[in-house]
Amino acid sequence: MFGITTPIIKAGDDIVQILEASLQAAGLVPVDGDIFVLAESAVGTAENRIVKLASVKPGEKARFLGEKYGIDPREMELVLQECDELFGGVPGAALTITKGILSPNAGIDASNAPEGHVVLLPKDPRKSSESIRKGLEQHYSCRLGVIIGDSRTQPLRLGCTGIALGVSGFVPVEDARGTVDIYGKPLRLTYKAAADNLVSAAELLMGEAGERVPCVLIRGAPVEMVDESPEMPTISMEGCMYFGNIIKGRKEGTYEGSR
Amino acid sequence: MFGITTPIIKAGDDIVQILEASLQAAGLVPVDGDIFVLAESAVGTAENRIVKLASVKPGEKARFLGEKYGIDPREMELVLQECDELFGGVPGAALTITKGILSPNAGIDASNAPEGHVVLLPKDPRKSSESIRKGLEQHYSCRLGVIIGDSRTQPLRLGCTGIALGVSGFVPVEDARGTVDIYGKPLRLTYKAAADNLVSAAELLMGEAGERVPCVLIRGAPVEMVDESPEMPTISMEGCMYFGNIIKGRKEGTYEGSR
Repeated sequence: MFGITTPIIKAGDDIVQILEASLQAAGLVPVDGDIFVLAESAVGTAENRIVKLASVKPGEKARFLGEKYGIDPREMELVLQECDELFGGVPGAALTITKGILSPNAGIDASNAPEGHVVLLPKDPRKSSESIRKGLEQHYSCRLGVIIGDSRTQPLRLGCTGIALGVSGFVPVEDARGTVDIYGKPLRLTYKAAADNLVSAAELLMGEAGERVPCVLIRGAPVEMVDESPEMPTISMEGCMYFGNIIKGRKEGTYEGSR
Repeated sequence: MFGITTPIIKAGDDIVQILEASLQAAGLVPVDGDIFVLAESAVGTAENRIVKLASVKPGEKARFLGEKYGIDPREMELVLQECDELFGGVPGAALTITKGILSPNAGIDASNAPEGHVVLLPKDPRKSSESIRKGLEQHYSCRLGVIIGDSRTQPLRLGCTGIALGVSGFVPVEDARGTVDIYGKPLRLTYKAAADNLVSAAELLMGEAGERVPCVLIRGAPVEMVDESPEMPTISMEGCMYFGNIIKGRKEGTYEGSR
């Protein structure tokens, strides 16, 4: 794994060109099977997804929810515009589904945006990853993978891990159905979140902070390369261990409860 | 990162000795700052935490909940014995807090256990990681880190990522409060789940399957080494973006709801 240091990325920048220059400066030449993990804030910025908060006029709903969750009402307005669905919130975070993925505050990032601005998620992370992959593959004449990655907390856990918003060039979730354990028995946990794991690995080197490492190159990852940009598979709320449980639990009352 | 292939680990095995032999066979010599990620099933097995299901007599509650969630009532009995708290379940998974961590089925693993058996989590993953670390450090005369890792799904997401059950020798959650973004503004997401990210990285090489790679050595991880075994920090249910939201949402009814 190599952290790629770049100049500060600005609106309208060409990510592929910046990566090429930064890789050259680092003396790195990509090879077949290399995976690039890119921070969503860098890609969003390059794609002009920066919004000046002073230009946003919050509606009534945004003012109400902003106050309720302790979120700037102008940012809350953007959350409402960006998200597909809003569930609720805790102080500082409104829980949404955005672009098919569970995201606090619709993935809107105030860190790594200029003062008074926020960065929205790339409009279509899958397409962004594809166009960056094609650009890099053409330049380096090899088969590559690209992930647009973000940070996310886990349930009842302190600290952020990685999540893939969009991928191109490899299979993001490994299907291990039909494989067996060390004793030859069929496996129970049969899907491995390869893309999310790659982002988590990259976050070790990336940092959330002013480290200017918006990209990590991962070499030798045991993933299946494909010349397409697969959708990130999701599961239904009913089939989700966390949501299915809680939603049903609250409806039914409980036999179980605390012990 | 190096995947360490070992013989099948059996009850009563000495993990440190097995790792030493396997590292030697692989031509690897640990150096200062190396982190070992170990699969909980391997550590639990070595610690004799294997249970023969035929020896378990399920009580009334276990039979009721086993039927409700489609879980073998004998395994459900073990879940009830092992967990601190039970929230509910979806088909195949009862959601618990076990050893302070959110775990499906109390972390009980039927994969990688002999036919008719299951493996419970190590009794005290933090202590296990500590004793393995001390053993390895003594043998190799350097400062190491050890993580007992497990697989976990994420909310509304297909596929497993990594989670650290217990760590020794380094700081598991990086506290970035006080650091600034690329524009000099204070960061919002201020904790980084370094230990969980290391387990996720390791899972890329580990596989859930019969690959006999119960250990991954990670070299050059930018973590803070300490000569202790820090507790894994958690957050309250109210402060959790997922639980706080849903619990409150269900209680209050909603202004927000679906859009």
